[in-house]
Amino acid sequence: MVDYFKSLVQPDIRQMIRERDRAGLKALLDVMHPAVAASILEDMKDQEIWAVLDNADLPRRVEIFEYMSLRRQAELVRSLDQRRLSELLEEMSPDDRVDLLSRMSPQRVEQILRLIAQAERNDIRRLLSYDENTAGAIMTTEYASLPVNITVGEALQRLRQQAPDSETIYYIYILGEDRRLKGLISLRELILAPEDQPLAEIMETDVIRMRVDEDREHVAQELARYNFIAMPIVDEHDRLVGIVTHDDAIDVVQEEATEDAYRQGAVEPLRDDYEDAPISVILWKRGVWLLALSLVALVTAWMLGLYEHATSSGLRDAPPDLSGTLIILFLPLVMASGGNAGSQSATLFIRMFALQPTDAAVPGTEFRVDRRLILRELLIGLALGTTLGVLDALVVTIGFHLGIWESSGTVGDLRRALVVGLTVLSIVVVGTAAGTLLPILFRRLGMDPAIMSNPLIAAIVDVLGVVLFYEVAMTFL
Amino acid sequence: MVDYFKSLVQPDIRQMIRERDRAGLKALLDVMHPAVAASILEDMKDQEIWAVLDNADLPRRVEIFEYMSLRRQAELVRSLDQRRLSELLEEMSPDDRVDLLSRMSPQRVEQILRLIAQAERNDIRRLLSYDENTAGAIMTTEYASLPVNITVGEALQRLRQQAPDSETIYYIYILGEDRRLKGLISLRELILAPEDQPLAEIMETDVIRMRVDEDREHVAQELARYNFIAMPIVDEHDRLVGIVTHDDAIDVVQEEATEDAYRQGAVEPLRDDYEDAPISVILWKRGVWLLALSLVALVTAWMLGLYEHATSSGLRDAPPDLSGTLIILFLPLVMASGGNAGSQSATLFIRMFALQPTDAAVPGTEFRVDRRLILRELLIGLALGTTLGVLDALVVTIGFHLGIWESSGTVGDLRRALVVGLTVLSIVVVGTAAGTLLPILFRRLGMDPAIMSNPLIAAIVDVLGVVLFYEVAMTFL
Repeated sequence: MVDYFKSLVQPDIRQMIRERDRAGLKALLDVMHPAVAASILEDMKDQEIWAVLDNADLPRRVEIFEYMSLRRQAELVRSLDQRRLSELLEEMSPDDRVDLLSRMSPQRVEQILRLIAQAERNDIRRLLSYDENTAGAIMTTEYASLPVNITVGEALQRLRQQAPDSETIYYIYILGEDRRLKGLISLRELILAPEDQPLAEIMETDVIRMRVDEDREHVAQELARYNFIAMPIVDEHDRLVGIVTHDDAIDVVQEEATEDAYRQGAVEPLRDDYEDAPISVILWKRGVWLLALSLVALVTAWMLGLYEHATSSGLRDAPPDLSGTLIILFLPLVMASGGNAGSQSATLFIRMFALQPTDAAVPGTEFRVDRRLILRELLIGLALGTTLGVLDALVVTIGFHLGIWESSGTVGDLRRALVVGLTVLSIVVVGTAAGTLLPILFRRLGMDPAIMSNPLIAAIVDVLGVVLFYEVAMTFL
Repeated sequence: MVDYFKSLVQPDIRQMIRERDRAGLKALLDVMHPAVAASILEDMKDQEIWAVLDNADLPRRVEIFEYMSLRRQAELVRSLDQRRLSELLEEMSPDDRVDLLSRMSPQRVEQILRLIAQAERNDIRRLLSYDENTAGAIMTTEYASLPVNITVGEALQRLRQQAPDSETIYYIYILGEDRRLKGLISLRELILAPEDQPLAEIMETDVIRMRVDEDREHVAQELARYNFIAMPIVDEHDRLVGIVTHDDAIDVVQEEATEDAYRQGAVEPLRDDYEDAPISVILWKRGVWLLALSLVALVTAWMLGLYEHATSSGLRDAPPDLSGTLIILFLPLVMASGGNAGSQSATLFIRMFALQPTDAAVPGTEFRVDRRLILRELLIGLALGTTLGVLDALVVTIGFHLGIWESSGTVGDLRRALVVGLTVLSIVVVGTAAGTLLPILFRRLGMDPAIMSNPLIAAIVDVLGVVLFYEVAMTFL
């Protein structure tokens, strides 16, 4: 929808810039949804964007600016002088502002902070200090709050004053002394209650809250589980320090899903969207993994060399099947079967972990996996392996019988089929076990289980596939 | 947090059931957040759950019930008689109700619909008729709406009456004749405006809306892009038929991420969570893919057979390297390199598509991929392939020189290294091309590009790897 609209409106905007139609540009920015304005402007030139945005009032200008991608925001502020930059930053919402500042050089941040009012400056410094994966890094400090000892009517009155500075006024937090979180009331309940009722009578006191150092993914998921519009975030003394809103939570869920998908595909997560990431960064994030996986594949080649040597020298009187033919024909099948079964297990377990992060802050909730799930997974591996093994053995028998593969050895077709079938069965079980246990191990070590990407599981299974295939072949041929 | 809490509270609850402490159970359900109550009760026995829930008032009981997983909801209603089931369904929110009904047998649904009031029944039938991947299937029909010709004060008055039946009253939709969507006003703006101001003066008239047959993933993403609490959903005559709320959108984003991850790992998406899915379903959803991938691997084996035949019979005077040794040692390396590079490209493109679905409803916005992105991806493939090829060639030279691999052939180490290096280079480029173009092709055909899973890309690249390796070897040896 926006793409279509964009191609219609961009030429008009350029014409208005040329004609210096300042009133027309202002009217256009005022009538469009800021998200639409942002995506129309985003791929225009920097000076064009400012030539348009400068016509809007500061709040509107900042609203549109905040809807642009972080990468584009960082590019755009480069051409601003310090005065205009500090004006922009002061108007921005605290969470978006900190995201932008964390993209700028520390020197520029220090220069610009000097121009910003003391209160805002402290807020910025505190938000900048939180680790980027925590609740602190995604929360905003602009929440609506009220004292406990007032009536509904007074509350509505005070709320009208706070509204312009709050990210949401639909949840209002009731604070006790020292800003401790005492209660929660929704605007819905507030407008339903009689004007003279004390807040204390209608507020919810058992407020679900999360810690500022909690993992941002966990915060997003808890917010989703409770269907909240915002999750209150407290410090170690239970003082309210911010809120994470529903729109930031949905962004986190999308970003984490993208990171996990990248890891599963053996790409280190990118900071920008794929389209926007510099080519050098992409090369690095992929090259590292390709090289690591190549190393494992070279171990496979080394194992193959060992077995080739053993079968061609130590066992000179071994049937020709052993010294190559059967192995070369079906090694790719063996490797693919084990690798694919392993990828499936790893995918299912990694996704399961992603949907239920543990709560590090509460004792007694260490990471545990139900043993029955592991057992069930291994049984599934056995069932799948048996099915595949039988079917592959059948195909091999028929294939040799029909001459699709040439019988260069002296062993019967059935025995060859037995070797391939048994190897496929065992490698599928081994692959399933690796795909299940390695992500669990990594998770237990406190690392991201998604590091056990599908290609890495496949690479590990490849090495084991060589060993299994030769061992089974040497036993039965 | 909940796991910890659960282990503390469950024994108490069981004791209260035994002691028939109805008042205590009611008080407990009233004070806990319904989501917490749901997860504490969820893994208790069916009759225990009803013995607890029956003590709460109907609205509270239904609220807790709605927070349980769909699978558990479907199990629980089996033990209800028709009267209690219809009572429960009438109280449920329209979207959750329809999700539950779509899990029940058509006969049971027909029986139960007879007991439900006419208006609700029509609502249920309409919602049941939408395709499960569309906005219609996730929207709720309980939105707040007002006519255009009233003042702010009257609006607040009417809203207080609608509040108990609305999923959210934070966005209020202004409807014209025939329920056409004319405007939008937020509760925030409403409480800030003077009581005697006409709604028409403060409402937003350029309301962003989506069609009821729009893909649910697209709706969730647009809602996230605009930071909406709810997205209005209209029919083909622009009449408001429902809203999709932020909490449903975040569920959709999570479900779609899980589906895509499963597809990427070659598992057909499951309807339930992995932990809850029946073993037979998991076997089927995985077995189908493993079999399909085995077929491709058998094609690889067939190709290998053809080349083995050609090199061992047609080219009897070919160096021994060609008839096996070099191929068997490094085929896994070649296949892994191509498959991994292909998985990376496919992952990046599939995730990019997932984050920007097209808008099928608007003309001129057909699916297009920026050609520069494809070109850039192929260049990246070339760069990665060159790096890997050079490094692998180096390792091969050193390996043969040091005797890690035995030189059974007559060809020099450098020439072997050249063959391996060139093959790796070409297969990485081929893998990248396959990983880029196949998802694009599938997307263009209107199919889910995630069907081009990592294992499938790898399997296709395996076949091409055999061809490339033998062709390069036959050229240079």
